[in-house]
Amino acid sequence: MNVKNPGKFVVGIDFGASRLKAGVCNHEGQLISHVVESTQDRENICGVIEQIAKIIDTAIAQSNLSRDKISGVAIGACGLVDRQKGYFLSSSVMPGWNNVPLSRAISKIVKLPVLLDNDANAAIFGEWWAGIGKGKNHVVGMTLGTGIGGGIILNNQLYYGCSDNAGEFGHMTVDPDGPRCFCGNRGCLGLLAGATGIVRRFLNRVKAGSDTILGQAGIDLESLTAKTIYEEASRGDRLAIEIINETGKYLGIGTANLISCFNPDMVIFTGGMTGMGESLLSIIRHEAQGRTYPAIYERVEIQFGKLGNKAGVIGAAGIFFLK
Amino acid sequence: MNVKNPGKFVVGIDFGASRLKAGVCNHEGQLISHVVESTQDRENICGVIEQIAKIIDTAIAQSNLSRDKISGVAIGACGLVDRQKGYFLSSSVMPGWNNVPLSRAISKIVKLPVLLDNDANAAIFGEWWAGIGKGKNHVVGMTLGTGIGGGIILNNQLYYGCSDNAGEFGHMTVDPDGPRCFCGNRGCLGLLAGATGIVRRFLNRVKAGSDTILGQAGIDLESLTAKTIYEEASRGDRLAIEIINETGKYLGIGTANLISCFNPDMVIFTGGMTGMGESLLSIIRHEAQGRTYPAIYERVEIQFGKLGNKAGVIGAAGIFFLK
Repeated sequence: MNVKNPGKFVVGIDFGASRLKAGVCNHEGQLISHVVESTQDRENICGVIEQIAKIIDTAIAQSNLSRDKISGVAIGACGLVDRQKGYFLSSSVMPGWNNVPLSRAISKIVKLPVLLDNDANAAIFGEWWAGIGKGKNHVVGMTLGTGIGGGIILNNQLYYGCSDNAGEFGHMTVDPDGPRCFCGNRGCLGLLAGATGIVRRFLNRVKAGSDTILGQAGIDLESLTAKTIYEEASRGDRLAIEIINETGKYLGIGTANLISCFNPDMVIFTGGMTGMGESLLSIIRHEAQGRTYPAIYERVEIQFGKLGNKAGVIGAAGIFFLK
Repeated sequence: MNVKNPGKFVVGIDFGASRLKAGVCNHEGQLISHVVESTQDRENICGVIEQIAKIIDTAIAQSNLSRDKISGVAIGACGLVDRQKGYFLSSSVMPGWNNVPLSRAISKIVKLPVLLDNDANAAIFGEWWAGIGKGKNHVVGMTLGTGIGGGIILNNQLYYGCSDNAGEFGHMTVDPDGPRCFCGNRGCLGLLAGATGIVRRFLNRVKAGSDTILGQAGIDLESLTAKTIYEEASRGDRLAIEIINETGKYLGIGTANLISCFNPDMVIFTGGMTGMGESLLSIIRHEAQGRTYPAIYERVEIQFGKLGNKAGVIGAAGIFFLK
């Protein structure tokens, strides 16, 4: 692993539709500072660009490093990107963000080189570089959020595919006759096991007459989140448990597919839902094991990340360091 | 692409449970000779090793090349192999073949270096090196035989995974509640869409009362093959058409998964079933398109190979040339 400028530092950015995170990172994946803000009015593209430039300054200021110690900025963004040009191409969660020359715009303000990549790539890269996947050659991973993204590290390098779209694990089919996804497919993993899918499946079951403490306890089902559902599952709500078990089963089917395809050293999950801990992880492992050739399953570890919500910031910086 | 010894030749071997093929191949993937035999009594390991050594001599003799023009031998074998040691580790179709030091045994007889790899890797590599996938950077492919195998070429190199088992595409789940596979999973692609699965699904449907010309025409259902089924489908047998459509659908689901995971330039199918031609290919493409994010589907070609039953021999030689 050749790290360029080991004495220098990189500002990593995790640019999400609702959260903007930044941190100054050293060449070993340690954060010197970490700043989290809500992403401002998403449809005001110039406003968001200024916010990103400002959070870069804040992160540098909080690190107490002089600016000449900073080699550059690396952004993991919540959408399709053109890495070569540094364009934010499009995103289902960022309306209006089409072909935005993000790297150039930020670079012009902060006077530093800016690298752009996808946020799921950054998060999985972070866990491989400085987290749970350290030292492994072949790692695939999923980011469990509103939907599900993915990242692939093969032979110690990010694998991008022919048009930078590899790792769309959220669009693997786990239920061929399942509900229709915006991509056109039926029964996509991300549609069923992402946070939105968890809530949708729960509410569908309530409508169909399933009992839940949540409704009885007067929790507003209109503003229900996946987090509430898994909290209620750990408190023993039967419907919530059923939904989480199903979620783990879907994730296990997807995981088994990844193991059969990639024969990886490790499958890593990051994102909010990993907050459920062992109870979800053990369902995923059990389902994946039952669906994988034993000799191949033996060689893989299935793990939740250990960098928490900092994986994307650290990973973006790591991509800059190792590029 | 760096070919070693471009003036020399390599003997490629496609070592299958029922067929043994050999050919002398030049550095551009052209066969100078090609020999096909039935694999002798599989349980007589020494006998088969002698047969392989003999077919190597026959292929060299038929090429009219002097032996000093041959750089080595490359075997694509129908099972798990240890490439480093040159061991044939195990295979569901080769009973008794456990930890056989195949490369060394052959090398001792023919006095040439011997390389060992998996037969599906060899076939897909052949189509990438000298067939339909020539010039593509990222190619994944399936071999459609009794079961389904796979091969992966990323960044112009075979990708093997952490224990040489990458590309087990036949064990992707395409029907989560489907029939049980020997690997432990339910609804494996290879179990449903391999030749054995095609026949099984056809016979199950006949037992359940579906009409077919085959039964009426007095064709012995006991010795039915997938080939007969797809021949009858092209002649208009309704049940055969239904079974082939289903097969294409399963293959399309698997193909869509591969496209979402690998973002490849091309997905290639080789093996006997590709003899069905456009009628099967168009079902696969249609199903895969409906199950893939349009921007990613646009960038991929789905093709049947063009080397026919020589893909494995040519590909094995290619692995030797490019190793």
